Amino acid sequence: MIHAAEMRVRYHETDKMGVANHINHFKWFEVGRAELLREMKLSMLTLEKAGCFLVLREARCVYASPAFYDDLIKVTTKMAEVRNRAVRFEYTITRGDAKLADGYTVHVFTDGAGKVKEIPAKFREKLLAAVE
Amino acid sequence: MIHAAEMRVRYHETDKMGVANHINHFKWFEVGRAELLREMKLSMLTLEKAGCFLVLREARCVYASPAFYDDLIKVTTKMAEVRNRAVRFEYTITRGDAKLADGYTVHVFTDGAGKVKEIPAKFREKLLAAVE
Amino acid sequence: MIHAAEMRVRYHETDKMGVANHINHFKWFEVGRAELLREMKLSMLTLEKAGCFLVLREARCVYASPAFYDDLIKVTTKMAEVRNRAVRFEYTITRGDAKLADGYTVHVFTDGAGKVKEIPAKFREKLLAAVE
Amino acid sequence: MIHAAEMRVRYHETDKMGVANHINHFKWFEVGRAELLREMKLSMLTLEKAGCFLVLREARCVYASPAFYDDLIKVTTKMAEVRNRAVRFEYTITRGDAKLADGYTVHVFTDGAGKVKEIPAKFREKLLAAVE
Repeated sequence: MIHAAEMRVRYHETDKMGVANHINHFKWFEVGRAELLREMKLSMLTLEKAGCFLVLREARCVYASPAFYDDLIKVTTKMAEVRNRAVRFEYTITRGDAKLADGYTVHVFTDGAGKVKEIPAKFREKLLAAVE
Repeated sequence: MIHAAEMRVRYHETDKMGVANHINHFKWFEVGRAELLREMKLSMLTLEKAGCFLVLREARCVYASPAFYDDLIKVTTKMAEVRNRAVRFEYTITRGDAKLADGYTVHVFTDGAGKVKEIPAKFREKLLAAVE
Repeated sequence: MIHAAEMRVRYHETDKMGVANHINHFKWFEVGRAELLREMKLSMLTLEKAGCFLVLREARCVYASPAFYDDLIKVTTKMAEVRNRAVRFEYTITRGDAKLADGYTVHVFTDGAGKVKEIPAKFREKLLAAVE
Repeated sequence: MIHAAEMRVRYHETDKMGVANHINHFKWFEVGRAELLREMKLSMLTLEKAGCFLVLREARCVYASPAFYDDLIKVTTKMAEVRNRAVRFEYTITRGDAKLADGYTVHVFTDGAGKVKEIPAKFREKLLAAVE
């Protein structure tokens, strides 16, 4: 499954170079991930109510071109991989035809206390079905 | 009691106008407040371990002059008022002799579930003793 | 003129109390203000291209009730006052029927170098026409 | 050259999982990088005044263990590589003996207009001398 979320670059997300600061791309990845999961009927809240927390293990972003204030950007999120205890999302950020950045995040499933655990079967099935 | 905390303006705190975005002043207020409470031996963690959470009721900032990237700024925080269920902090942000901003925040004490409660006597006494 | 902008509370906007940190309300105000100006055909970019920068002089927020992760919130922004060199916006943040917060911001018009200036007549007229 | 910068985890940097949100590690990397460059007498401001802007090309962080509110963390930054037009910094974030995260960032040198350029010889020499 692939989800495309649109959003605008906010003023406070820019920095003195006049472009969106690179930190925000990871915030936009979060929005993309949340919306993809929502579309799969596995929203973060659904997962957390079932005692499953997605803890970040790794995040990477490669920047191709700057995003400017007020740009209408699109974050395309793909469920890339599902393992026993971890999932991997891949992202591309575009503005019109221009690619601005891409990246990925890897998350482990933990219980409320932060202990890594296997992804419950009912969730794993849904997640696996969404892998592109 | 008055506490002065020094910190530098970070790159991602600036915006495309070339100055620190106004949102950050509230982050710097938080640092000032945390350090003042620490000096009073009533750190946020101490309060929270005792079931006391400081929930914001009001925040205001008046901006006099911009803060620039890498500026070494000073947040001076004062315990301004202690009521039965609420406290008020006042802040001034300066760079050398220049006043950049001032403001205040008002917080109510709540329990872990978000219910407003009276400030426990042992904490209230310490807080009152620190009022300037 | 009054504009209502909808947005979701993002995960990284929450804090360890389990609710949206109070700093984000000022970010949401910014979104509301940008969208109101856009509706007036006076977007921030339009203003900045004409050498008009809106510099914050004052910001205040009163918090009534917490916003939670993934809440669909509405920021209602009103052009409240237009003076010779300054404008004032008022905001209300709601979730369904519940009021979460309200506040205001006051901005002065400056040129690119940060010097306060009068609002150009063509802009002032549009802004005045939008005052509620 | 290696620089160790200490800082505290701020309240607004935590999220509803009760730990520092992963986005902040990139903010802390920025502080580490700025302080390393300052120690080399090549602060960001010095570089920018000479028309050299460090634009991010890539950022990655691997998270080993959570950072909690008020933790005193240490960001150790190393000048890892200097090429003709790009530099690479490596970071480790620790709390006492515990490793919390490590990562790297790659930056290209650009002029004020965003065009990639060669690192000026005088700067390149200093940077190369600092490579570990």
